[in-house]
Amino acid sequence: MCAMKPSIPKGTRDFSPAEMAKRNYIFDTIRSVFRLYGYNPIETPAMENLSTLMGKYGEEGDKLLFKILNSGDFLRGADPKLIADGDCARLASQLCEKGLRYDLTVPFARYVVQHRNELQMPFKRFQIQPVWRADRPQKGRYREFYQCDADVVGSDSLVNEIELLQMIDEVFRRLKIRIILKLNNRKVLAGIAELIGAPDKIVDITVAIDKIDKIGLDNVNAELAERGLTEEQIATLRPILQISGTLEERLGRLRELLASSEEGMRGVEELQTVVDGVMALGLDAELDLDVSLARGLNYYTGTIIEVKAADVAIGSITGGGRYDNLTGVFGMPGLSGVGISFGADRIYDVLNTLDLYPSEARTATRVMFVNFGGKEAAAAMKMLKEMRAAGVAAEIYPDPAKMKKQMGYADALAIPYVALVGETEAAEGKLNLKDMATGEQRLLTPAEAVAVINTL
Amino acid sequence: MCAMKPSIPKGTRDFSPAEMAKRNYIFDTIRSVFRLYGYNPIETPAMENLSTLMGKYGEEGDKLLFKILNSGDFLRGADPKLIADGDCARLASQLCEKGLRYDLTVPFARYVVQHRNELQMPFKRFQIQPVWRADRPQKGRYREFYQCDADVVGSDSLVNEIELLQMIDEVFRRLKIRIILKLNNRKVLAGIAELIGAPDKIVDITVAIDKIDKIGLDNVNAELAERGLTEEQIATLRPILQISGTLEERLGRLRELLASSEEGMRGVEELQTVVDGVMALGLDAELDLDVSLARGLNYYTGTIIEVKAADVAIGSITGGGRYDNLTGVFGMPGLSGVGISFGADRIYDVLNTLDLYPSEARTATRVMFVNFGGKEAAAAMKMLKEMRAAGVAAEIYPDPAKMKKQMGYADALAIPYVALVGETEAAEGKLNLKDMATGEQRLLTPAEAVAVINTL
Repeated sequence: MCAMKPSIPKGTRDFSPAEMAKRNYIFDTIRSVFRLYGYNPIETPAMENLSTLMGKYGEEGDKLLFKILNSGDFLRGADPKLIADGDCARLASQLCEKGLRYDLTVPFARYVVQHRNELQMPFKRFQIQPVWRADRPQKGRYREFYQCDADVVGSDSLVNEIELLQMIDEVFRRLKIRIILKLNNRKVLAGIAELIGAPDKIVDITVAIDKIDKIGLDNVNAELAERGLTEEQIATLRPILQISGTLEERLGRLRELLASSEEGMRGVEELQTVVDGVMALGLDAELDLDVSLARGLNYYTGTIIEVKAADVAIGSITGGGRYDNLTGVFGMPGLSGVGISFGADRIYDVLNTLDLYPSEARTATRVMFVNFGGKEAAAAMKMLKEMRAAGVAAEIYPDPAKMKKQMGYADALAIPYVALVGETEAAEGKLNLKDMATGEQRLLTPAEAVAVINTL
Repeated sequence: MCAMKPSIPKGTRDFSPAEMAKRNYIFDTIRSVFRLYGYNPIETPAMENLSTLMGKYGEEGDKLLFKILNSGDFLRGADPKLIADGDCARLASQLCEKGLRYDLTVPFARYVVQHRNELQMPFKRFQIQPVWRADRPQKGRYREFYQCDADVVGSDSLVNEIELLQMIDEVFRRLKIRIILKLNNRKVLAGIAELIGAPDKIVDITVAIDKIDKIGLDNVNAELAERGLTEEQIATLRPILQISGTLEERLGRLRELLASSEEGMRGVEELQTVVDGVMALGLDAELDLDVSLARGLNYYTGTIIEVKAADVAIGSITGGGRYDNLTGVFGMPGLSGVGISFGADRIYDVLNTLDLYPSEARTATRVMFVNFGGKEAAAAMKMLKEMRAAGVAAEIYPDPAKMKKQMGYADALAIPYVALVGETEAAEGKLNLKDMATGEQRLLTPAEAVAVINTL
């Protein structure tokens, strides 16, 4: 056991009590809204079978999975040729049966299929758990981070979309973050591809136009040309990417442009229903139609949702959409679902940037009893018990240390009240309650002190 | 993407909404009590550097660590000789830099040392997070399970012990589980070893006498003989293991027997102080002195705590103790700490066995609106918004499905109220609120419905 300077793996974090308070503020807000809308929590294991995870996030994703070395004689199943060749990618699957979950969506799909006989459909679940990715760590990107997902499966009603948008609106209203709620529909994207006569190029088109915000229209067009679109096709696409006006005007224009595509028109109608639905109920957020919005298109099949903070330049802070075949890969086809995912870490950064945390409580403790030792400490502990029974978070400095040290502790933890129980107070069954903000001091019974503390 | 029957790694579990409700009941109870006593939350990463974890849990523990395969070319640092020899134990450390945490104590020690300059001492923290062990799964033993720890470091005052015992008492009082709170002190154990003239045999002695409940005095004596104790030493030990009477009588008898051992006497005095302290404040739990209690002796140095359920035959459901050198291994000697750990999974089993869960709420939802589609659904959604704004968890069945199906959903989720908004109700801005328990139905405004639902 040698002494060493301890550290944690790069891309991971410790959370101090002060950071936990901020994070719990976010999680509690999201959780309350999820519950308010009838979503119920589930949890899945940190480790999934690699067979569940592999192939679900593309080739790049497979590489970013944290894999867990089999216990015991892990070399037994390993092909010596792969070892000799140094073929780590293929060897990993022989040394490891399990991996850490990469997101909450695939474990949820696995959960739904595995427990299909116990589930009441439509099944509305939320899940707030960490995920792990062997990404290169950088500012705002971690190897362990939390996702906060709400999904409903077993219903293709657009009521779900409307409610999920209301939930997003409510979460950010409570957090006091102004947002822009961007909407699109994958059927609109398919309609566009059909319109320009390149239905097989839908992935290329959406990958390219998804970058319009970042690289501008000209560069997107250059990329489209590179991906094999003709000048004519690019020209047909242009008016769609340049649609402007109010939400109603833009939906109207899209309806004109996509008139010839049945699928495109269905997408427009879905957008119209969702927009009408949320507008009728009222929304704090700014609603935006963005035909360049694609997000993980490979599994979204209908509505696509993305949220940006209006006052902070940061990537999307929430996203989601409808997927019609998420569980198909696990042998349960035809189950439609729609969901949203809040990015807790980015929301944390936004709240920090805008200084929107309610109060800098560094502890739940409302009052600290000074420890004078002996009988006085024993009397203080009796009063402590009474005040705790009344629900007041309270503590006694454990050691009868110097007054300055004890007060320094209360100060450092921003504990709002200090209670002093000396010989006289102990005899009377009272305490001197000191308000740390004003310095005011009052002789009170524990019950009176509870009343004072609770009015803060 | 082939279809397959999905599953999860053995020894891990999914938690359904119903199970989550029960688990959260336990976690919330523990968390509230931790906060009430001035303990603040921290979280540490799931992954720690293997150098932090290895060698802290004994040779057996090292084998039970889940190790994470390095990303990319993990074979680069591997010694070909170890591969050729099939020396998996040593090879694992070359293929893996990280492991999943095995408990919360070692990560906490690492945290304290790493952040020592930011911490206000005494530092009172709690931590509720999962841990992972590659143990052979069996009934009640999982490879992923939660620990709920509270520890204070930087204070050697016995006030901490007294408060931790009060916390244990309060948690189980709230959970309505009757417990036996067993106490011992490692200095008493050291005194016993000294008394029988075998101070170097303290580990052997405690390992053997720790089994007295399971195997009986005769078998313990046989084991002690096997471990090299003479007949005379075993005879000296006998009266200590057979101490009986009230707590006071037993402490008195121990004081007589250990009179010649300075360390032993210090242990008795510590026990006396702790017992007097908690008795003065009152305890629901039955307090027991158990000199055969040893628990992970290798790091406990003072008080040792163990909790058994009085009405269910199951292992210990909470444990803890004082350790004087936990952070020494990370280069920070001389920091005393004391802590307790609640075993959430066993507590879960106890509550299930005794049927002590408050209510079988399968969802937070208080009311489900039946979906009649069209304008009625739109009117219902407006009422929904109003009721949610008043804090009522509510939902609308997303599809305008057959009445029977919608009611079946509300029934399956045990939602207490169903709201019906047909054409007439929609025109009046009212809803028909049906109490699912009584079948009673009332025409109400949303505000009136909120009042009714909240009185339940």
